[in-house]
Amino acid sequence: MFHNIEIDKGQPIYIQIKNYFRTMIAKGMLQKGERLPSTRELSSLLKVSRNTVISAYESLVDDGFINIIEGKGAFVSDINISSGGGWVTEWESRINEYAREARDLDIVKQEAVWEKEMIPMSSISPEPELFPMEDFKRAFMNIISLEGYKILNYGYAQGYKPLLDYLTGYMESKGVNTEGKSVLITNGFTEAFEILISSLTKEGDPILCENPTHNTALKIMKLRKLDILGAHMDGGGISIQEVKRIIENNKVKLAYITPSYHNPTGITMPWERRIELYDILAGNDIPIIENGFNEELRYFGSHISPIAAIGGRGNGVIYTGSFSKILFPGLRLGWIVADTALIDYLESVKRSRNIHTSFLDQAILYEFFREGSFEKYIKKARRVYKQKYEAAIAAVRQNIPQAMLYGDGGLHIFIKHKGINSRNLLSECIKKGVIFTPGDIFYINDEGKDAFRLGFSRVRADDIEIGIKIISSTIENIRE
Amino acid sequence: MFHNIEIDKGQPIYIQIKNYFRTMIAKGMLQKGERLPSTRELSSLLKVSRNTVISAYESLVDDGFINIIEGKGAFVSDINISSGGGWVTEWESRINEYAREARDLDIVKQEAVWEKEMIPMSSISPEPELFPMEDFKRAFMNIISLEGYKILNYGYAQGYKPLLDYLTGYMESKGVNTEGKSVLITNGFTEAFEILISSLTKEGDPILCENPTHNTALKIMKLRKLDILGAHMDGGGISIQEVKRIIENNKVKLAYITPSYHNPTGITMPWERRIELYDILAGNDIPIIENGFNEELRYFGSHISPIAAIGGRGNGVIYTGSFSKILFPGLRLGWIVADTALIDYLESVKRSRNIHTSFLDQAILYEFFREGSFEKYIKKARRVYKQKYEAAIAAVRQNIPQAMLYGDGGLHIFIKHKGINSRNLLSECIKKGVIFTPGDIFYINDEGKDAFRLGFSRVRADDIEIGIKIISSTIENIRE
Repeated sequence: MFHNIEIDKGQPIYIQIKNYFRTMIAKGMLQKGERLPSTRELSSLLKVSRNTVISAYESLVDDGFINIIEGKGAFVSDINISSGGGWVTEWESRINEYAREARDLDIVKQEAVWEKEMIPMSSISPEPELFPMEDFKRAFMNIISLEGYKILNYGYAQGYKPLLDYLTGYMESKGVNTEGKSVLITNGFTEAFEILISSLTKEGDPILCENPTHNTALKIMKLRKLDILGAHMDGGGISIQEVKRIIENNKVKLAYITPSYHNPTGITMPWERRIELYDILAGNDIPIIENGFNEELRYFGSHISPIAAIGGRGNGVIYTGSFSKILFPGLRLGWIVADTALIDYLESVKRSRNIHTSFLDQAILYEFFREGSFEKYIKKARRVYKQKYEAAIAAVRQNIPQAMLYGDGGLHIFIKHKGINSRNLLSECIKKGVIFTPGDIFYINDEGKDAFRLGFSRVRADDIEIGIKIISSTIENIRE
Repeated sequence: MFHNIEIDKGQPIYIQIKNYFRTMIAKGMLQKGERLPSTRELSSLLKVSRNTVISAYESLVDDGFINIIEGKGAFVSDINISSGGGWVTEWESRINEYAREARDLDIVKQEAVWEKEMIPMSSISPEPELFPMEDFKRAFMNIISLEGYKILNYGYAQGYKPLLDYLTGYMESKGVNTEGKSVLITNGFTEAFEILISSLTKEGDPILCENPTHNTALKIMKLRKLDILGAHMDGGGISIQEVKRIIENNKVKLAYITPSYHNPTGITMPWERRIELYDILAGNDIPIIENGFNEELRYFGSHISPIAAIGGRGNGVIYTGSFSKILFPGLRLGWIVADTALIDYLESVKRSRNIHTSFLDQAILYEFFREGSFEKYIKKARRVYKQKYEAAIAAVRQNIPQAMLYGDGGLHIFIKHKGINSRNLLSECIKKGVIFTPGDIFYINDEGKDAFRLGFSRVRADDIEIGIKIISSTIENIRE
């Protein structure tokens, strides 16, 4: 006995010895009143110092697992162990419809996933090799020096004040009038949208959106059992004719719109259409949830203000932002800018869900911005992504000239190709080492079978053309 | 014009100049085609280097706000500005019942809050001055060196693998058999419980719990409109007689139990009662959600295994854990240990809510544990809190001897006092600089008016007796 204590280099040795005994005792393999080996015996058996064993035993005393009786040794405390174990319940039948559907709609569980060596055209997450790690570390050290333990204790549901102020200024610099509005920090766009939908809708409510649209947003609307009314898109974004038709025939409650570098199409809505869309929705008093997730990834043309900038001091547009498509998505930071009265409710919902978003992460990101590291980074990131974007566009034009090609910036392009089935195309391409996202997951109904999304952010520059050539030749093959 | 560019020390100057112009342009105060001052003019006006102004202008070009025409100057791009602003929508009426109730049940908004100089007996958050900041910084630097950018990119909904493995071992050392079980990382206990309730219940489902119970759990159950069936407690925890009676008369679907250092009472259920409770619930196939939030804060007596340890390889107990009452609550890290089939669904729900919990925070905490910093810290924290605990117990026994006093460890004690109204007591005590938590917020129905919770974690050692003396004398006054 005790020969099987495995010591590795991972943890301080005294903790490993302690955990070994904790587990032995907790599981009843060492029983109440049993004597542990003397510290001398165990130290020679394990070839560790006697002090190490003493520390382990002291820690076991602290945790209430053993008692030390002076001159007699260490004995297992009055720990009771169950002999139970017969109760096995059946969980499958206890899962409710909501959780079941969350699993059915979970693309990570339902779709093909990237494997090593594949060209990852399914990803639209940022290239982490671009992350400025030294700047990030400096931001951490500086903010910890400044704030100390404060940012490690409970914070406020609304968010870390300096970050809230920073984002207010940032929205102002996008032309949004923030008078009478407030910011709420969320765990990324996903939580922002989920909280909004949970707070503003009930089952069956009609919601207007682009068709196709972001599959995570679609999942959240489906889980809420909304009546999702999709308007087709053309090269300039959502079709105004369709919007009018839908509004005439339904009591639309909310609209969800991604005007810049839309997911999955990459389309950017021109300013004139933003105004037109805003006017129609304002005229019908249908609030807009605007997703600005990709806005910073503009490679050419003038800045186009978000829809939230149109209303001036009006309050009909809720803006949701995220930096997850640009940097540090692992931190899960997003935000909502909306009417102060609305944010007041959303803040309570946020608190009921998870108290608040990590204050450490918020503080690091704030400091990263304050020091100017974001400006430096975005300049470099835009340059790299712009090259990849241009390479992708060029490769598709040359190799799949018959396809309809969409994408005005961001980290992906979208392709429609008459006569193909993108699911079959995907299966064949995976065999050849290329993975992308089939179009149908972005559509409300049974559409998008002839479409697919190509992400280029994580693809090495050389592989963009290679990947697209493989797709092109596979299209030829499956059409034969 | 431009005199009003305020330069402060907060941010690199070129970014401040850029943001000034971005906002001016985005808001239409500088219009399409207008010429910006020359870099020479502006640098002399603002008394900054010309290179700084050049950087600002370059950055404005990158963002698409201006164009530079060689030899002519910098001109505002084709940015369109809205003259809109008439649309003001009424948000109050759009808030649904759920969000409205989340706000009504939000104690931060409804209850008196601590103000500077008050003795903070309402708080049960850890004393942040105890946080080992140097160890925390080291954990950050070490894990960043090891993992690099990986922990800043998207991770997995279930959690950071090394932390999952660590917690599996940790649960084993509490006597929990983790065969056939998995761990899910959540944003604290709050999210763990919220996801469980969302996934396993529907409106009106009967749920059994201690009465009183944790007010956040109560809020979540109320928001889900569950039929909350509270069983009274005695000095050994939930009354078994009551549990039997409730089960006989209702089709109870789930039980929610906090067996150690219960919130608000501080009561720890002895091992024999844990077995008895387990047997009854197992016999009726009613799964248990166990809250182990305070388990590490044991100051005396032998270790008592969690209820989750009773079932052996059985799967009827869901264990939820959190370190937020011990260290770094600002990180919002908690976990669920449950049957693997159940975790598979919960993981998809977690993904639909916010993709995953911050991988940076998970990785830092893992490294903090791996390096043995938690062991060192908990030793010190237990010593400090034990002293405060003993001071609080002694002060109540001496100054409010007529009160019923509960609390076996943790960061708070609970007091029942016949004939008082704790709301009135609180109002009077606040005037004298002492704040605590009135008991009624922990009760399901209209009970607990004669009870209150005293947290001592954030109270300075000297202030514990002072605070309790003030409460004692106020009790005398309001009874007169």
